[in-house]
Amino acid sequence: MALLGMDLGGTKLATAVFTEDGELIKKDRVFLDKRGGSGVGRLITGRIRETLDDALRENYSIDSIGISVPGISRSDSGTVWAPNIPGWDDYPLLAEAESAGGNIPVVIDSDRACYIAGELWKGNAKGCRDAIFLSVGTGIGAGIIVNGDILRGSHDIGGSIGWMALDRPYSDDYAGCGCFEYHASGEGITRTAGRMLEKDADYSGILRDKPLAEISSRDVFEAFEKGDPLASLVIGDCIEFWGMAVANLISLFNPEVIILGGGVFGPALRFIDDISKESSRWAQPVSSRQVRITGSALGGDAGVTGAGYMALKKLREII
Amino acid sequence: MALLGMDLGGTKLATAVFTEDGELIKKDRVFLDKRGGSGVGRLITGRIRETLDDALRENYSIDSIGISVPGISRSDSGTVWAPNIPGWDDYPLLAEAESAGGNIPVVIDSDRACYIAGELWKGNAKGCRDAIFLSVGTGIGAGIIVNGDILRGSHDIGGSIGWMALDRPYSDDYAGCGCFEYHASGEGITRTAGRMLEKDADYSGILRDKPLAEISSRDVFEAFEKGDPLASLVIGDCIEFWGMAVANLISLFNPEVIILGGGVFGPALRFIDDISKESSRWAQPVSSRQVRITGSALGGDAGVTGAGYMALKKLREII
Repeated sequence: MALLGMDLGGTKLATAVFTEDGELIKKDRVFLDKRGGSGVGRLITGRIRETLDDALRENYSIDSIGISVPGISRSDSGTVWAPNIPGWDDYPLLAEAESAGGNIPVVIDSDRACYIAGELWKGNAKGCRDAIFLSVGTGIGAGIIVNGDILRGSHDIGGSIGWMALDRPYSDDYAGCGCFEYHASGEGITRTAGRMLEKDADYSGILRDKPLAEISSRDVFEAFEKGDPLASLVIGDCIEFWGMAVANLISLFNPEVIILGGGVFGPALRFIDDISKESSRWAQPVSSRQVRITGSALGGDAGVTGAGYMALKKLREII
Repeated sequence: MALLGMDLGGTKLATAVFTEDGELIKKDRVFLDKRGGSGVGRLITGRIRETLDDALRENYSIDSIGISVPGISRSDSGTVWAPNIPGWDDYPLLAEAESAGGNIPVVIDSDRACYIAGELWKGNAKGCRDAIFLSVGTGIGAGIIVNGDILRGSHDIGGSIGWMALDRPYSDDYAGCGCFEYHASGEGITRTAGRMLEKDADYSGILRDKPLAEISSRDVFEAFEKGDPLASLVIGDCIEFWGMAVANLISLFNPEVIILGGGVFGPALRFIDDISKESSRWAQPVSSRQVRITGSALGGDAGVTGAGYMALKKLREII
């Protein structure tokens, strides 16, 4: 018996096969290139068929399929909204994947739900019933486990923590992405640095070496490492926002663990002590002492691993 | 078959008997007077015995008991922490109530959990699987239902929304109660009004009629009703904080309904449209359109009704 996990991102599709104990049998990935719409659908169904064929040849069976998507999986219709994949406003992925898989059960969930599911199965949330994965990358989202179950909300869009209100007064800048994401996502870091660079004519540090439009959040982290004063201001702001958001998760959910992951929390994990310190000023103090704040154990494999775990859970529901 | 619900507050103990369909058989209440510690325990066990005796005499059976407490019910030890009841840091209420009830099952939960349970059974959250009761009174807390279950967290202190970080920078004033509660609880309203009165020597409105120390949040609401400018500023601030908090609940939980209740949301319910409008600026926009924001259907009976429902749920777990 084996489980197929797939992690669709904005630029690539990762595939992995696991035993039911979570042991990795194999994994690989393909790039989406310029695919959109049904092209991405065919890439996924193609990989399903190939993986099933391989399994047949290698004499084991794939018994369940889980797919992580970068957006919202609508559990009532089986369709997917994924803003970074052209034409995926309401894409019928469940029907296509089920058709490609024959009689094999298929489950689809959002990437943030899969991240925490992966950590629950094989990472830093093992054995937890209340755990949160705070994913900060280009955007921000949270995968949340309450009483051992994924929090999806009434219409599958729970965990939209990028919209968290953290700073008065309201600004129209928040309308497209939310206050927290505006200030403290990868894009937020780049934007804040850009705004400061425009304002601060006297600054002549490292971040002037590149045209404004080419500066990435990674450049800001590197400048910070080298003691750049403008980068320090930007990162200092972010640490405040990350700490406040972590605090709010602690106060509301009283979780056992909060895992910081996603693209930005590669370079930003070095600030975990600062984030914890900031969080502990704001959070319910008893909950704050009880929680563990840590990085992801799975890194870039959190999504595909969580998809594998979703596949296992789906199978257990059925049998 | 009948269920006994009890709602312990800081000043009184309400008791109600329900049929399993939630029909009220009878209710009454007693004041705590100056009782504390085991005096409150004896009051509760006394009421349990009297209610059981009455039931026997009137020829029906009490089959399960639920108790709402103004603090934290520790599910592992069966003890209660209730900051407003002297000596209740770790009070062994479960053991005492079980002993008074004979072989009848007893369940204890926090008031905020009971509020939302009550609304789920007989109020504005009927039929919901994702619902929230935001209770704003002297303090602030949230009773939260996720996937049909109460969110308690790993150590029974989930829903501590009074600690929500909503306004930078951090102030030491938040250390005792949290940012949201500091600004927007009943006490917060009184405190903000007091601070403004001290600062604003030119103000000669209604709120000068009383000594500063005697002004209550109700006075501020009344002054607002009469067009008082200082009261308008205070209430305007509160609406912003309430709206932001409601927004954060919407973005994180994607609930079907958010119910505003508690002492302050008697007079403050008239602002529900303003709060909804403020919330919709901040919240995840799709979730924001899906949620219903409303007042409590049960008012002061939410706690005792929820305790009755907890009793029913406990019984169904067993049988």
